Amino acid sequence: MNLNEGGARLRTGLTPEPVIVSATTADIRFPTSRFLDGSDAMNPDPDYSAAYVTLSADGLEGHGLAFTLGRGTDLVVAAIEALLPQVIGRSLDGIENDLAGFWRSLVGDSQYRWLGPEKGIIHLATAAIVNAVWDMLARRAGKPLWRYLADMPPEQVVSAIDFRHIADALPPELALDLLNRNLADKPARIARLEAEGHAAYTTSAGWLGYDDDKIRDLAGKAIADGWSAIKMKVGGNLADDIRRCAVLREVLGPDRLLMIDANQVWDVDQAIDWVKALADYNPYWIEEPISPDDILGHGRIRQAVAPIRVATGEHCHNRVMFKQFLQADAIDVVQVDACRLGGVNEVLSVLLLAAAFDKPVCPHAGGVGLCEYVQHISFFDAAAVASSAEGRMIEHAGHLHEHFIDPIRIRAGRYLAPELPGYSVEMKPASRAEYAFPNGSTWQS
Amino acid sequence: MNLNEGGARLRTGLTPEPVIVSATTADIRFPTSRFLDGSDAMNPDPDYSAAYVTLSADGLEGHGLAFTLGRGTDLVVAAIEALLPQVIGRSLDGIENDLAGFWRSLVGDSQYRWLGPEKGIIHLATAAIVNAVWDMLARRAGKPLWRYLADMPPEQVVSAIDFRHIADALPPELALDLLNRNLADKPARIARLEAEGHAAYTTSAGWLGYDDDKIRDLAGKAIADGWSAIKMKVGGNLADDIRRCAVLREVLGPDRLLMIDANQVWDVDQAIDWVKALADYNPYWIEEPISPDDILGHGRIRQAVAPIRVATGEHCHNRVMFKQFLQADAIDVVQVDACRLGGVNEVLSVLLLAAAFDKPVCPHAGGVGLCEYVQHISFFDAAAVASSAEGRMIEHAGHLHEHFIDPIRIRAGRYLAPELPGYSVEMKPASRAEYAFPNGSTWQS
Repeated sequence: MNLNEGGARLRTGLTPEPVIVSATTADIRFPTSRFLDGSDAMNPDPDYSAAYVTLSADGLEGHGLAFTLGRGTDLVVAAIEALLPQVIGRSLDGIENDLAGFWRSLVGDSQYRWLGPEKGIIHLATAAIVNAVWDMLARRAGKPLWRYLADMPPEQVVSAIDFRHIADALPPELALDLLNRNLADKPARIARLEAEGHAAYTTSAGWLGYDDDKIRDLAGKAIADGWSAIKMKVGGNLADDIRRCAVLREVLGPDRLLMIDANQVWDVDQAIDWVKALADYNPYWIEEPISPDDILGHGRIRQAVAPIRVATGEHCHNRVMFKQFLQADAIDVVQVDACRLGGVNEVLSVLLLAAAFDKPVCPHAGGVGLCEYVQHISFFDAAAVASSAEGRMIEHAGHLHEHFIDPIRIRAGRYLAPELPGYSVEMKPASRAEYAFPNGSTWQS
Repeated sequence: MNLNEGGARLRTGLTPEPVIVSATTADIRFPTSRFLDGSDAMNPDPDYSAAYVTLSADGLEGHGLAFTLGRGTDLVVAAIEALLPQVIGRSLDGIENDLAGFWRSLVGDSQYRWLGPEKGIIHLATAAIVNAVWDMLARRAGKPLWRYLADMPPEQVVSAIDFRHIADALPPELALDLLNRNLADKPARIARLEAEGHAAYTTSAGWLGYDDDKIRDLAGKAIADGWSAIKMKVGGNLADDIRRCAVLREVLGPDRLLMIDANQVWDVDQAIDWVKALADYNPYWIEEPISPDDILGHGRIRQAVAPIRVATGEHCHNRVMFKQFLQADAIDVVQVDACRLGGVNEVLSVLLLAAAFDKPVCPHAGGVGLCEYVQHISFFDAAAVASSAEGRMIEHAGHLHEHFIDPIRIRAGRYLAPELPGYSVEMKPASRAEYAFPNGSTWQS
């Protein structure tokens, strides 16, 4: 099954098979609450943070993180440390030859499984480790993760997916069919993505803690920079939301997209009323109107507010939940998160579920490292999975990218294709030191 | 709102208002995997464990625990310690006068909330603390928890519930109506419960790791002891399950109840086929056939295997999920767990949701401390919430009760009403010392 170049070279016997021999973890927190960056109706004062892990294997490194909001990052780090024995000592060839088996070994430990299953802290920790392993695999192959995935034969992509509990909606044969459907077009799609990048929207203008003048100013700058879609936080106070929507719609003009995001603060009927009260400003989608677990509630809202789309996913904790959102026709936009789901393997299953129901994937980003992660998801989706580019956009938020060795690159409101090998979330050592919690210089001052 | 006797006494000013001043935690693990007690298709070798917390307030103590399976108990203990600052320094009167506000302050910290929300490790930790607080409130009132709850006026019970995200199915007015419906009958119900106890079933005979002879022997003894309903684990191997069902049905005779429990190992279609293959043995319910998150899948199975009932809940992580299982008519039996849900407050909301849809609640027990906990839930349900006693049973498993100061009492297959003040999960100090992980004598030997 291992058909990529790097893997083949390593199995010739000329070099020893790389084995994951050690790992380090870190609790890294940025004091974003000091400026209300990232503030929304549910999260008034997040400190964007990362439970960070570095795996080492004979000269190769793999970096992964789970995005968090400050307090509790230590709990995710502790969970990563608890799960690390599952990967230490494993060979990369062994992992690459049984990608789903590797994933299942991490989520399947029956004693740890009780603590989820496949949700919450233990799943965030799983994601950090799984993503670090994929980062390492892509680096070994000398490719950015999205190209490493796009260059895999469909059979190998399918071999990475755990079909347990989703086979009723996505049997392996269907997953394979969906990938084969785009096989002939894949080289042209890749060439186009490398030439033109990928569509995106920005959240940076509309945090709830920003006042009207700051929103107007940031939105104007965003448009000048080439953005044609902007997301705004709502759900604090209806009069404020109406005023802020009016400001943004005025700046955007009639044709650019305005998305709104309530971060779960409403109940179902309240959501319907509130969104209808904002309908005059023509929102493209309403995001997270209610509890992220409420599949049936999203379906009711979708029926009531159409043609306004319903989007959710940043708190959608596993493939079984996404399966149901799709089966129930409860959402229009699938907002996968790179580390809320259990890492690349589970993201692949959700990309294919979305394709099976032909719903667009617009990954959640915005936190620290999430833009770096999810660009790979969308580029792979566009190259090998999605039926078309229609309605597919990558979220963008403009802060904290300076801490990454291979940060995102934006041109005229589009993501450029990542080019360096790996999954792009390796943080600069100096940043990791400065923002380490509680002993880094930022937290000591 | 605080109308119970103890509370009234303490607000006279004769004694100072009790304040939670300190807390201790413990990681307690029983080596149950050595004998395959508790083994099932998903959990071959659990070590029944508890993340344990003791709160202290001026001479009063409150004990709470979250049940776990061994590895990872330390992560739940760490999460408890992270949340403890939310309760240290609070007065019991302040809590009792704003029970929902107290609960929401624990689940609503926006930085910790990201780690769930309301699921996984952070929610297990919430449950342990919340239950310890209720234990303390009931002790202060001098009543077993179920009587403390049953003696509350309906308005006060409703004041303990966070209706956010469930108001579409259970508005506060409906919750109050449901409680008022039984108000006149409540004294007679309480008298009957104190005289006759509560119906139950036992899981002790049918763990997956037990061989046929052991099952036959244990089931025979259970019947001799007065049990009329027995649950068996299935899902390992169909031929084995058929043979074991035959053994149990033979011992049970045609009229006693046989329940089967697959612990999530199947996919939807597989579950339907497997249960149909066991239908000849007339199982009363199939429990956890598939992923505990798969509401729609349970609904499909329920349609296909009727009249065999579908039961789930031990991994149902919050009220929003139970709401949907009920809205979708996807289950017949509501198996609330005392510490998978976020403690007493959230359990109350699910009891009322179940009553709103008139589905029986049969709480999950079986682990360590769960029988002690859930007897209070069922006795309160029977006293004040449920429409009738029909189909309501408390799970029973016969091990580890010797470690509790106020263990369950079973007579002829029924639970006797708990009588000592509190929530019954205070573990003997000697047991806590002996099974402390990793330094207790059991783990040092």
